[in-house]
Amino acid sequence: MSARAGIVVTGTEVLSGRVSDRNGPWLADRLRELGVDLAFTAIVGDRPDDIEEALRFMADRDLDLVLTSGGLGPTADDLTAEVVGRFQGREMVLDEVLSEQITEIIRPLAERWPHLDRDAIEVSTRKQATIPAGATVLAPVGTAPGLVVPPASANGGPTVLVLPGPPRELQPMWAEAVKTDALRAALTNATSYRQGMLRLFGIPESEIAETLRVAEQEGVELDRLEVTTCLKRGEIEVVTRYEPEAESAYQQLVAIVQARHADTLFSQDGSSVDDQVAALLRARPAVRSIATAESCTGGLLAARLTERPGASEYVKGGIVAYSDEVKISQAGVPRALIEAHGAVSGEVAQALADGARSRLGAEVGVGVTGVAGPGGGTEDKPVGLVWLSVAAGEAPHMTRSVNLPGGRADVRDRATTVAMHMIRRTLADR
Amino acid sequence: MSARAGIVVTGTEVLSGRVSDRNGPWLADRLRELGVDLAFTAIVGDRPDDIEEALRFMADRDLDLVLTSGGLGPTADDLTAEVVGRFQGREMVLDEVLSEQITEIIRPLAERWPHLDRDAIEVSTRKQATIPAGATVLAPVGTAPGLVVPPASANGGPTVLVLPGPPRELQPMWAEAVKTDALRAALTNATSYRQGMLRLFGIPESEIAETLRVAEQEGVELDRLEVTTCLKRGEIEVVTRYEPEAESAYQQLVAIVQARHADTLFSQDGSSVDDQVAALLRARPAVRSIATAESCTGGLLAARLTERPGASEYVKGGIVAYSDEVKISQAGVPRALIEAHGAVSGEVAQALADGARSRLGAEVGVGVTGVAGPGGGTEDKPVGLVWLSVAAGEAPHMTRSVNLPGGRADVRDRATTVAMHMIRRTLADR
Repeated sequence: MSARAGIVVTGTEVLSGRVSDRNGPWLADRLRELGVDLAFTAIVGDRPDDIEEALRFMADRDLDLVLTSGGLGPTADDLTAEVVGRFQGREMVLDEVLSEQITEIIRPLAERWPHLDRDAIEVSTRKQATIPAGATVLAPVGTAPGLVVPPASANGGPTVLVLPGPPRELQPMWAEAVKTDALRAALTNATSYRQGMLRLFGIPESEIAETLRVAEQEGVELDRLEVTTCLKRGEIEVVTRYEPEAESAYQQLVAIVQARHADTLFSQDGSSVDDQVAALLRARPAVRSIATAESCTGGLLAARLTERPGASEYVKGGIVAYSDEVKISQAGVPRALIEAHGAVSGEVAQALADGARSRLGAEVGVGVTGVAGPGGGTEDKPVGLVWLSVAAGEAPHMTRSVNLPGGRADVRDRATTVAMHMIRRTLADR
Repeated sequence: MSARAGIVVTGTEVLSGRVSDRNGPWLADRLRELGVDLAFTAIVGDRPDDIEEALRFMADRDLDLVLTSGGLGPTADDLTAEVVGRFQGREMVLDEVLSEQITEIIRPLAERWPHLDRDAIEVSTRKQATIPAGATVLAPVGTAPGLVVPPASANGGPTVLVLPGPPRELQPMWAEAVKTDALRAALTNATSYRQGMLRLFGIPESEIAETLRVAEQEGVELDRLEVTTCLKRGEIEVVTRYEPEAESAYQQLVAIVQARHADTLFSQDGSSVDDQVAALLRARPAVRSIATAESCTGGLLAARLTERPGASEYVKGGIVAYSDEVKISQAGVPRALIEAHGAVSGEVAQALADGARSRLGAEVGVGVTGVAGPGGGTEDKPVGLVWLSVAAGEAPHMTRSVNLPGGRADVRDRATTVAMHMIRRTLADR
């Protein structure tokens, strides 16, 4: 039985959907690395009763650890520390050392905005320095401290780790939290799980369901493997979590997937297509520079290629050729080609790929043109139709059309995924 | 007392953070429109016990309605319908009509992939057509039906609305669900709330906290207003939810914010900076065309400007000038300027804005160049330093530098927000 945890994300802005939660998913990953089983994530508003109900729910399920994010800010609706203190049966006390620390931290801010109200700053500081007695303090990254709050009574209950809401404060603070005695004590039962991930591109999810049934018929002990499949940005991810003793069952499953889906299985080590494209481009930076010319994706493909650090080693840049004039003037697409075939066509996609390559001086050029919708579709060229082309070296272009489902944002996003896979195949074949 | 609801998002891939949840936030918006108070969102894995625990938690809190998303697919780990049936005390039965419907839906798919296993398809179909007795069926958008499942016993408990996981299936199905008698019956208590939103750019969150204290001192009945503030992509959102009778209290609060923050308050009607920029550009499309030349943001600004339908009316396109050669050859930045001031400088940002405008034939040009990190920072030009420039008409450029906090993704994203605000100010002043 491994240690079990829950996450309580606080914030009316998160519950109401105005801000998307980046902390729950990030903390889920960290717990998995620690071998802690995440059972529930709850999102609650900034109402003290609701936060307490969520803590109660977690405690009633015998969890060892509850993580909270958010509600540590300077405003009166930030109540998490106080609610957790009460829940754990601990009095709230002003921590003078912490109060000094916070005062030092906000001094430069106060100097930068000299018109700020001094009293307001002092009220905020005192609020943020008032913590449950006996809690372990995690030094502020922003202005708010984190807290490790064990239950006051010997009857047990979960230890609560209180973290701030902004991801750039929460993430470094987590690294400090796992080093504390208080957190380690809560996780004495953690056992390590293994996790394997397979990624496939270009088949429906039902095919994987069938492969799992076949695996079971062939005697793979699927009950020792926690297998989940999901469709993510047009790719299928098959994630399997298992105890180390079930390694051979997992290897049998992998062998069956390899045999049945050789042409669509592109990753067995957790690497994403973005990782693979970056590695292929990085392998010979002098030769493998890349440039894009995009229409319907409007810059998303260039943005995706430059997402990771060091992208400047191989990305020259791109052209967002949204209007036909820009396709002609900047990407060098012949006007006659657009007139003959339309802007959304294989011919124009190829010309965009060529233009990206020649105009930006890159070895690999990628062209994308399509109908993102919701308007602009015709019977011949419906919303979701996207033409893509990759040009590299002396080989013929790889040019494909796809009919992508979903709304405008889906079509734009999926088109970048198709482009990434075409780049991967082109580079891997060379 | 308004009707209260909870959301249970199912899926190990969501709980573990591999897929981000788009349904919870979307459903939260829909509930708000209906005047239903969202109390909790729970995210649980594909384990039946955990799904049931989450339903139990919601039921114990006297909610009127629970929405579930996910777990209706064809694979064996998709268990939501069965768990909800059991929880509501209803037997699972095969719905023959539904089974026929699903068979019709997947026929074209089966024809497209002729090598699919027929038995597998039949098993999947039967599974998806087996539903709790007495449930109201919502016709499939993909292959899975939705369900409105009232409690079997007269003792009450929440009605459960079971929706599929893919947003493009869930969203149209919601529209059908609200028309059903079963759902209407569950929401007889719904009362309408009003909601106001103020957006500010360029001040710290603590200033708003202070303004709220001032408002209270000046007699605004804040206890009748549910005010939440949050920082989102560098902007502050102040959202206030209130019953119609508290309208005058809200108007008093708005007046105080207007008076104290006239220069940073840019939206009082819920419109985003993206909405405002689009409206300003749309106002005179022939004149107000826009083009970008981006370095550190790598296409994100062009992608943001082309996000909404109809963007082709005013976006000409952009140049992603990631390498210095592309800055020179495509955006026309003089080499001497880069040598004299460095690629990250106000001079180069201006030249990028000019190049975008002249090369792409647009009236408004935007240049962005900065150090996104994590590497590449120096003492003079640290990670997070971004120079931006907007050129429009004959007026002088608006050119600014900012020091943005956070990691690479934050810096890139925030830089696009700063650019959007500079575009807004430039266009609004004209």
